[in-house]
Amino acid sequence: MQNRLQQQIHFLYEIDKVKDIFRQSLVVNGKREENDAEHSWHMAMTAITLQEYFLEPVNMEKVLKMILIHDIIEIYAGDTPAFSEIRDDKFEAEFESAKKVFGILPVKESEELLNLWLEFEAMETSEAKFATVCDRLQGFIQNLTSDGHTWKKFNVSIDKVLKGAEPIKLYTPKLFYDFVMPEFEEYMKKGIIKP
Amino acid sequence: MQNRLQQQIHFLYEIDKVKDIFRQSLVVNGKREENDAEHSWHMAMTAITLQEYFLEPVNMEKVLKMILIHDIIEIYAGDTPAFSEIRDDKFEAEFESAKKVFGILPVKESEELLNLWLEFEAMETSEAKFATVCDRLQGFIQNLTSDGHTWKKFNVSIDKVLKGAEPIKLYTPKLFYDFVMPEFEEYMKKGIIKP
Repeated sequence: MQNRLQQQIHFLYEIDKVKDIFRQSLVVNGKREENDAEHSWHMAMTAITLQEYFLEPVNMEKVLKMILIHDIIEIYAGDTPAFSEIRDDKFEAEFESAKKVFGILPVKESEELLNLWLEFEAMETSEAKFATVCDRLQGFIQNLTSDGHTWKKFNVSIDKVLKGAEPIKLYTPKLFYDFVMPEFEEYMKKGIIKP
Repeated sequence: MQNRLQQQIHFLYEIDKVKDIFRQSLVVNGKREENDAEHSWHMAMTAITLQEYFLEPVNMEKVLKMILIHDIIEIYAGDTPAFSEIRDDKFEAEFESAKKVFGILPVKESEELLNLWLEFEAMETSEAKFATVCDRLQGFIQNLTSDGHTWKKFNVSIDKVLKGAEPIKLYTPKLFYDFVMPEFEEYMKKGIIKP
């Protein structure tokens, strides 16, 4: 095998590890924790299903690629749960991890994926904003199918969940007001989300 | 929530079940079986990584969407292992399943995804051919990271694996001759693939 192809195959072997990085969210009616590969797939399906609610035009090829690669960097940096304390060095650790894992690829492709991940993190372009909305929505949906599992686990307040849902409110307001907010109110009534 | 949005959210809840459909392939260094959501994610990453070897130009947005939805139909039809006997009614069962699961969506979107799945199954367009190559390659790679698990399990012969790899040979010959075939030869030497 030639060097270039070897690097590409090595990358496809290495990212098998994404299937072994577990999140706090429960899947399959709350049966077990979700891993990053499943999350990325479901998040991509969220983008395909709900694109019409995003207010700006987007390049969907770019959105899908961004979503599919966004958690690969957790191979060496680990998952940071949505409602946990964020480590001071989170970005630094993830950036190092990104350079390491994308660095397995030939130089040009490595830089392309690294830049795509940096673009996602910066949340400035339309594609990055929409991908972030899908990230938050997927976690939100997984809470609805597990009776608020991570909301209970982290004993969250309405302030905290509203902060997490801020990109949904800003960039897909219809989804926020017609879907997300009524569920927050419902879970406050149940006492699962604290006032 | 309005009816249209309700249907879309219901679809996103329903496809959570894809994470509970298990394949024969082992993941994470042969630790456990792979589910369809993980397979679809890894197959999409295979498309992103190896596009240059496909001989025709493709619309990558379409390829990625096709890959992401291709196994959703297994929710009601179940998985058909690559080296098992194919049931006579496989297509019929999957087509019924496809109509049922995509039918959760509003009519236009439902038809779009159904047609995209039918296009994948027919393997006539460039996008469907490339998606099929990625399907076969992902299963192949998972055999390499588990010392030929499904080859052993189904006691396969070289004829059978060559038949499965036919789309790789036809549409991405460089990948076949530089990567796939040398591995087949290696696994024949080991006695795992039978002559």
